[in-house]
Amino acid sequence: MGIEAEIKKIGVQAKLASAGARRASTAQKNRGLDEIAQHLVNASDDLIAANAKDLEAARASNLDAASLDRLILTKSGIQAMSEGLQQICALEDPVGKISQMAARPNGLEIGKMRTPIGVIGMIYESRPNVTIDAAGLCIKSGNAVILRGGSECIHTNRALFSCISDGLKAADLDPDWVQLIATTDRAAVGALLALDEHVDMIIPRGGKSLIERVAKETRIPILKHLDGNCHLFVNDDADLTMAESLVMNSKTQRYAVCNALETLLIHKALPASFVSDVIIRLVAEGVEVRACQRTLEQVIQQSGVVPASSSDWSTEYLGPVLALKIVDDIDDAIRHINEHGSNHTDTIVTQRLADTQKFMREVDSSSVMVNASTRFADGFEYGLGAEIGISTDKLHARGPVGLEGLTSEKYVVFGQGQIRG
Amino acid sequence: MGIEAEIKKIGVQAKLASAGARRASTAQKNRGLDEIAQHLVNASDDLIAANAKDLEAARASNLDAASLDRLILTKSGIQAMSEGLQQICALEDPVGKISQMAARPNGLEIGKMRTPIGVIGMIYESRPNVTIDAAGLCIKSGNAVILRGGSECIHTNRALFSCISDGLKAADLDPDWVQLIATTDRAAVGALLALDEHVDMIIPRGGKSLIERVAKETRIPILKHLDGNCHLFVNDDADLTMAESLVMNSKTQRYAVCNALETLLIHKALPASFVSDVIIRLVAEGVEVRACQRTLEQVIQQSGVVPASSSDWSTEYLGPVLALKIVDDIDDAIRHINEHGSNHTDTIVTQRLADTQKFMREVDSSSVMVNASTRFADGFEYGLGAEIGISTDKLHARGPVGLEGLTSEKYVVFGQGQIRG
Repeated sequence: MGIEAEIKKIGVQAKLASAGARRASTAQKNRGLDEIAQHLVNASDDLIAANAKDLEAARASNLDAASLDRLILTKSGIQAMSEGLQQICALEDPVGKISQMAARPNGLEIGKMRTPIGVIGMIYESRPNVTIDAAGLCIKSGNAVILRGGSECIHTNRALFSCISDGLKAADLDPDWVQLIATTDRAAVGALLALDEHVDMIIPRGGKSLIERVAKETRIPILKHLDGNCHLFVNDDADLTMAESLVMNSKTQRYAVCNALETLLIHKALPASFVSDVIIRLVAEGVEVRACQRTLEQVIQQSGVVPASSSDWSTEYLGPVLALKIVDDIDDAIRHINEHGSNHTDTIVTQRLADTQKFMREVDSSSVMVNASTRFADGFEYGLGAEIGISTDKLHARGPVGLEGLTSEKYVVFGQGQIRG
Repeated sequence: MGIEAEIKKIGVQAKLASAGARRASTAQKNRGLDEIAQHLVNASDDLIAANAKDLEAARASNLDAASLDRLILTKSGIQAMSEGLQQICALEDPVGKISQMAARPNGLEIGKMRTPIGVIGMIYESRPNVTIDAAGLCIKSGNAVILRGGSECIHTNRALFSCISDGLKAADLDPDWVQLIATTDRAAVGALLALDEHVDMIIPRGGKSLIERVAKETRIPILKHLDGNCHLFVNDDADLTMAESLVMNSKTQRYAVCNALETLLIHKALPASFVSDVIIRLVAEGVEVRACQRTLEQVIQQSGVVPASSSDWSTEYLGPVLALKIVDDIDDAIRHINEHGSNHTDTIVTQRLADTQKFMREVDSSSVMVNASTRFADGFEYGLGAEIGISTDKLHARGPVGLEGLTSEKYVVFGQGQIRG
């Protein structure tokens, strides 16, 4: 069988399985999750042996240290995956929830019911835990899922997938509910992206080039996460100690994450000493500051501070670099964020209610914050219990996506024989 | 200026205008709607004169009677448009509404705020009222909009657009909030569909070929409405008088609408006399019944009843034809609907709670009903106040789309200086 036919067969099976997934009760779904969690722990040795093969191949092909690090599966990592599934068990089942129920003048009662989306295609790189997280979230939300992990992780993913299949079977659930594209043939991704009759949503997780390729090649709706060019704006009335602490945490707590701070905006009325203090602390942490002309005129020249070029305002550094701009006022800050930002996460530091309201309303980002570190933009921190990704799209779900974002709402109408006149 | 450059300029202007649209208060938006409503009534004579030009051209090009009928603008039609805008004024403004607000253990308060989507591209055919409805809904929901109506309606749309522009200016609002692609050059649609950096959502409204073209050509997310292949299932315990009345209303109240009944499913346990009665009434109304083998074996042969072919199960007739199938039970009915339906609107007639619950949960359609005519699947009937379309998509909004479907939710996070540990 050619790769297109093989992937299409997986798509057809997923569509069939999605009918059962939509019907499954919360108890059935939780039983499946629990069985998979147990199978993972029981299969620890096999999983680690499979992972060793991937690590060996990765070392042989000189994979960079960061990617290698993401690939490693340890006993405690397996334990964490298993506990993650138990946490998903504990989450409220969104499916079947009815809201906005109201009676119409003709007696019809109309509301909205949460319903699974259908078939999810998940395309991702490295990290083996994504295999388990995605399977768990799709099971609980009643969606069938087709998993396509990175080829560098193929042995680990196959072994993890055995635990998923065996767990589903042990819980008397259809094993086709979760399927893995077990080949490393690159054509498989193209074939999956072409299945618009069988797949209802594609979630790409990985580097920008992967996400751009997926967005370009498919007509299936996608839930995508592009850049995280996050801003923090220090307003003229900010508590400066708080502001400094938030800047340091947002920028330096972790660098290579999408919710790290990339551009700092400071109100022009704030004292030059504050700007200097922040710069000194950042530079001391090893952060290079790329500053606007106004900043350079105010602060004493020092190593670690360089002039910003126009491209800095739209760059997601994902490293120890920060762009810094002095702005005229809150309107200037909002304009800058909406023009150069990536609609991910932006914070204002202020004590003024009116400015908070203005910032919250006018900044067009998936997470808008006041007096909080950008690093909190995360499904776990938001209490979603788990996260399948962070969406920078504007439709369907924005920001961290948990179970609710894997469902949509249909109308339900209860009548007593009403006809339209 | 070439057409691509011209449309791109419109896109850039829309993006700029969307910042103001997002900021506008409910009072400002309502004032704009009110001014447009007044300008429409005041410009009645001009509008009717412009419409006459379109009608003349349409007659000269032998446009079919139905299309011609949709094109006509009368004094009472203008009055209705104006009143429609006043109704949108009266609707609750969705923008800025915060829900799901809850405190996290670290004191962060996190919720979701409704926010406009940004720039909407509206591509539609005939009916001049769509120009006003779409402008009104986009203004109230805080979105900038680019309108592209059918070329057969160009003079009317230009005249309507003057009222919109003048109304926005009279209310001190940015006239670029609503823009019209005033050329009939067909390349303009392609140019609009290519503006993925400036347009956030495309809503196509019109025939299937238009919608398929749009879905094929653009990478911008679309809110689309394809077929309305609606079902009604008469369960074994149904009140048969109610069932007959619902069948007749769903099928014959209007034929050429997406929420008309196309396939009737009847439980095999119901008496042959019921099936015959329904058929006789349908045939008497001029409906051709395309029946399954089991039906044909049960009922007396008569004119107006023909055998169904397999393609009938997936056909949206939009006319006086109905497919009829006898099914084994509710599971068979649900399987048939999910396999052959178009995820639009499906009804069960039953008195049993458990079967209602099963049908509501398992039928994967944008509107699932019990004991109600499929004809109720409509934004006005649902109390949305107005409707920009009906979505048969599975993401974002399903079913009739009003103001809420023109917004999405972003996270808002209120802190007191929290940093991540």
